[in-house]
Amino acid sequence: MKIGIIGLGRMGGNIARRLMRAGHETVVFDRNAPAVEGLVADGAVGATSLEDMRDKLDKPGIYWVMLPAGDPTEQTIATIGGFDTKGDIIIDGGNSFYKDDIRRAKALTEQGTHYVDVGTSGGVWGLERGYCMMVGGSKEAVDTIDPILAALAPGIGTIPRTPGRIEENEDPRAEQGYIHAGPAGAGHFVKMVHNGIEYGLMQAYAEGFDILKGKASDKLPEDERFDLNLTDIAEVWRRGSVISSWLLDLTAIGLAKDQNLEQFTGSVADSGEGQWTIDAAMEEKVPANVLTAALFARYRSRVDHTFGDKLLSAMRFGFGGHVEMPQ
Amino acid sequence: MKIGIIGLGRMGGNIARRLMRAGHETVVFDRNAPAVEGLVADGAVGATSLEDMRDKLDKPGIYWVMLPAGDPTEQTIATIGGFDTKGDIIIDGGNSFYKDDIRRAKALTEQGTHYVDVGTSGGVWGLERGYCMMVGGSKEAVDTIDPILAALAPGIGTIPRTPGRIEENEDPRAEQGYIHAGPAGAGHFVKMVHNGIEYGLMQAYAEGFDILKGKASDKLPEDERFDLNLTDIAEVWRRGSVISSWLLDLTAIGLAKDQNLEQFTGSVADSGEGQWTIDAAMEEKVPANVLTAALFARYRSRVDHTFGDKLLSAMRFGFGGHVEMPQ
Amino acid sequence: MKIGIIGLGRMGGNIARRLMRAGHETVVFDRNAPAVEGLVADGAVGATSLEDMRDKLDKPGIYWVMLPAGDPTEQTIATIGGFDTKGDIIIDGGNSFYKDDIRRAKALTEQGTHYVDVGTSGGVWGLERGYCMMVGGSKEAVDTIDPILAALAPGIGTIPRTPGRIEENEDPRAEQGYIHAGPAGAGHFVKMVHNGIEYGLMQAYAEGFDILKGKASDKLPEDERFDLNLTDIAEVWRRGSVISSWLLDLTAIGLAKDQNLEQFTGSVADSGEGQWTIDAAMEEKVPANVLTAALFARYRSRVDHTFGDKLLSAMRFGFGGHVEMPQ
Amino acid sequence: MKIGIIGLGRMGGNIARRLMRAGHETVVFDRNAPAVEGLVADGAVGATSLEDMRDKLDKPGIYWVMLPAGDPTEQTIATIGGFDTKGDIIIDGGNSFYKDDIRRAKALTEQGTHYVDVGTSGGVWGLERGYCMMVGGSKEAVDTIDPILAALAPGIGTIPRTPGRIEENEDPRAEQGYIHAGPAGAGHFVKMVHNGIEYGLMQAYAEGFDILKGKASDKLPEDERFDLNLTDIAEVWRRGSVISSWLLDLTAIGLAKDQNLEQFTGSVADSGEGQWTIDAAMEEKVPANVLTAALFARYRSRVDHTFGDKLLSAMRFGFGGHVEMPQ
Repeated sequence: MKIGIIGLGRMGGNIARRLMRAGHETVVFDRNAPAVEGLVADGAVGATSLEDMRDKLDKPGIYWVMLPAGDPTEQTIATIGGFDTKGDIIIDGGNSFYKDDIRRAKALTEQGTHYVDVGTSGGVWGLERGYCMMVGGSKEAVDTIDPILAALAPGIGTIPRTPGRIEENEDPRAEQGYIHAGPAGAGHFVKMVHNGIEYGLMQAYAEGFDILKGKASDKLPEDERFDLNLTDIAEVWRRGSVISSWLLDLTAIGLAKDQNLEQFTGSVADSGEGQWTIDAAMEEKVPANVLTAALFARYRSRVDHTFGDKLLSAMRFGFGGHVEMPQ
Repeated sequence: MKIGIIGLGRMGGNIARRLMRAGHETVVFDRNAPAVEGLVADGAVGATSLEDMRDKLDKPGIYWVMLPAGDPTEQTIATIGGFDTKGDIIIDGGNSFYKDDIRRAKALTEQGTHYVDVGTSGGVWGLERGYCMMVGGSKEAVDTIDPILAALAPGIGTIPRTPGRIEENEDPRAEQGYIHAGPAGAGHFVKMVHNGIEYGLMQAYAEGFDILKGKASDKLPEDERFDLNLTDIAEVWRRGSVISSWLLDLTAIGLAKDQNLEQFTGSVADSGEGQWTIDAAMEEKVPANVLTAALFARYRSRVDHTFGDKLLSAMRFGFGGHVEMPQ
Repeated sequence: MKIGIIGLGRMGGNIARRLMRAGHETVVFDRNAPAVEGLVADGAVGATSLEDMRDKLDKPGIYWVMLPAGDPTEQTIATIGGFDTKGDIIIDGGNSFYKDDIRRAKALTEQGTHYVDVGTSGGVWGLERGYCMMVGGSKEAVDTIDPILAALAPGIGTIPRTPGRIEENEDPRAEQGYIHAGPAGAGHFVKMVHNGIEYGLMQAYAEGFDILKGKASDKLPEDERFDLNLTDIAEVWRRGSVISSWLLDLTAIGLAKDQNLEQFTGSVADSGEGQWTIDAAMEEKVPANVLTAALFARYRSRVDHTFGDKLLSAMRFGFGGHVEMPQ
Repeated sequence: MKIGIIGLGRMGGNIARRLMRAGHETVVFDRNAPAVEGLVADGAVGATSLEDMRDKLDKPGIYWVMLPAGDPTEQTIATIGGFDTKGDIIIDGGNSFYKDDIRRAKALTEQGTHYVDVGTSGGVWGLERGYCMMVGGSKEAVDTIDPILAALAPGIGTIPRTPGRIEENEDPRAEQGYIHAGPAGAGHFVKMVHNGIEYGLMQAYAEGFDILKGKASDKLPEDERFDLNLTDIAEVWRRGSVISSWLLDLTAIGLAKDQNLEQFTGSVADSGEGQWTIDAAMEEKVPANVLTAALFARYRSRVDHTFGDKLLSAMRFGFGGHVEMPQ
């Protein structure tokens, strides 16, 4: 198929490459001209603007928007939507908030433009491994772009089938690594929860390794200390233990390079989905202590001290004349 | 009554003073001689050792040990217990772990010595306001020292009676500010949970004021920022709001001095009871998310970054090539 | 002053009464006619509609809306705003979301109507004790209604002044029990955080008493059990302990009636402010583990089992062949 | 090698079988005679008592104890230790508390008996997949039993090597699926933290799927609901997403059988390691909010309502006259 790809960063560039490897034609655009040139060298058709891309695509056209959530995505979709070509399919492959998808899809559908949201997981590994995709939109639009999704997905590969999975009941695409999750917004909603879970998983490993490392601490009685090899522990847990996972594989890679992780300061970003997941939990009245604690650990990692900490010290001073602990 | 007081720090010294004001005779000892001299100037009889104290007290004697939990308390009680005078009453007024009380009481009771544990709350304010006390031990011993406890307690004062409290069902001492909570250990157990709750309450205020202060943050859209006067907010909440409390009074005092609390760094100690409270919750299989989060916030306040934070950064780098956020 | 009061429930009715006691004239309206009649019997002027109220008030008029947040409040304010009388003051005394205040104030200000939001704490006790109020709006409007606020506030009463509070630096109204917190929205924002803190405080006590009660559990070794008198413990903590508070007073009242609280099932509502407080924390990137855990404990209290619990059982069965624990 | 295996439950029986498949000779004992017979049918030598096992093993003997932690393990090790045969190796392959290992190893080492603790992960899948093992003990003893450990371990299999792992720096056994973690106790300590992490991971998935399922809730506005296929979501996340893991594989299996998990009530056991992990965190002063919240979610899953919930209701009634929410 022919597809336009807007946004050629880490994710967008590799998506274009993986599609070309599968024989699809890509027309690519990025505000950053060298990014376009790089893709053209790999076989893409370059575009100098969204209008230029429109002219180089079929009618109706298929557009994959792979930009930061918020203004960049919003404005790009508004421009493409403004082309108002009946039957166009606009795909938001980024990390938009699912309520924005619902809103956009409503407006675009009224004018006959299709809107599809694709939550895309795979990171820098996706070019080789393929991308896991959660897709929202109308059946018609999702079916139309199926060849694109199939090319991006990892396929069944070497990952074993789930015992007990009954083919006739389930969506066969799931085993290929993509699903049609529901109407517009459903794709990003599922991806959002995915990222919320990711934060929780990551924090569980983080706390566990913190406890392993702390076991050498001189706060402990001498005969209760262990000086553990974290690199070997991460490695052994990859092999037959119940906590083996891709995140553990990444942990093992990081620790193999440097068991003390000295290149990192420990100031950890969060990208929006974690927060939206907690919003969703609260709207549904679902308790989500683990996912929230994981998110808050990231906030906490980015400040030296909270004002709240100081208030604790002020209360302790007021009550007991306590002075602060030297750090 | 005549009572020996061992440990003349912030708490012990004021306890001796409050007892003398009520007409009790005190014999006082501290490893730090000037502390003894200070109390002697206030009317106490000084002792140069535990043996000297024994000789200056009646037989059987009453000893109030007011020392840091752990070795100092343990050794002092061992020494006094070694006097082996039938009918002696040893009171541990400090912050011992209640299982240590159970163990000590068992051993001392066998030799005819009484052991009483008194959880004591009141801080630097206790001299004037009186101490709230939770007492564990045999009925006989607790009844014997009742005049001591009554003198230390705040008494009913101006605090209104609890509507619906039926006198015949309840312990009249509770309204005076002390209770006989149960056998040895029960006093410190109740005081331990008291401190666990205290941590939770403090952290609730800390987080709330953090959110108030953060509302001026330039992370927020400009028309959603408020530059709030925290001093006045603490003050107004003291007056008719459902979250009025002594801890809020202390917060108001701290903020009245300096709304930014700049004298504090925010490195917050914890004293053992918080941790033991969580241990007790786990033994009983009681979920205690708030008390635990409050305790962990203190741990977190004392380190710049956890190793776990670095591990999160390592995973994010491994997965998405993410570099760390500048702080 | 003359003031219209819309909504004569538990809070609104008592607010009208307290104002009348202070000599203010009230015109009252409620969809529920008997509620109006009750207030008329107490000296209010009854209104049969908002239009009727307008006609019975001065021009410009002062309206205190005391209705459930959401549609009832929104529609009532829209109707009064539609009167479009220059200089009217509309007060939202309920629990509106502060961003709704910001929006409404913007629209009303453009037409010359004042909008004031008053976060009101005091519960069923407010009629006698007075209400603690946090007020947002323009200086002009807040100054105009000062006599109303002063009459509703508790006044300085018997609550001691905060040591170190320097009068010239601070708002003297804070000591009377109300503050002008900032522009429109600031009143409800401060009240929202107040309720967030309230949830945290309540949960801290709840967990503490849970641990006290659990100490009698037969899960524990027999010599480590205590059968504690929770009623007396709540009482004694009110007297000189650092965790004394109004919420503890209420706890003591509840336990004095029935130490086992058998009239309650333990299904606990939450009213919106708790959730909005967490939203605010996330927008500001402030970690708020305690306030969140308190909110989630309420969600959890309202379901028998979460689907997540079942998923844990499914995983345990899958991994280890574990069958579920009988409850 | 020849090895005695005590405890032929789910884990112990399969360990014996896997060893025999690898050509080792096993002498087996269980209080439950049919369990012994089952293994004898598979080629093991049956023993009728620990003494009988001793007589059927070489001297010194190797004993693998695979019993529930606590009394059964303690007494069995005491009995075998009482044989007092110089050079015997006693392996505790169960889930003992690591401080018990330290204590036992100290006593046994003094008499010339070796003590090795093996944290064993693998569940019902271990017979085929192999067991991931974390081993504590002296180098001499661990080297002696290496053929046993190698036979039980999964081996490198199809799991890719960790990029960047430098062979000369690391323990080659880690890639085979077992490590010598340190002195006695270190094996169970690492396994304990493993289980703590496991609880955290499981709870992260549980909360995420709870939020997915709750998205169909009629608490939400109709146009924001999604009726998601959880079975397909679990499946797709196994394929290229960053949260793929063995626990997710098990989730997918469970959901493939029944998306509503109706065979489970959601009452979830915890086995000790989760609690000990939090104990270790507190001893080291490491904040572990996620691991703790995961543990507490299990406690909470096993009661209908906490007493704390009732206390919240009592406070709300006392403050605002609120009656409880119908469930």
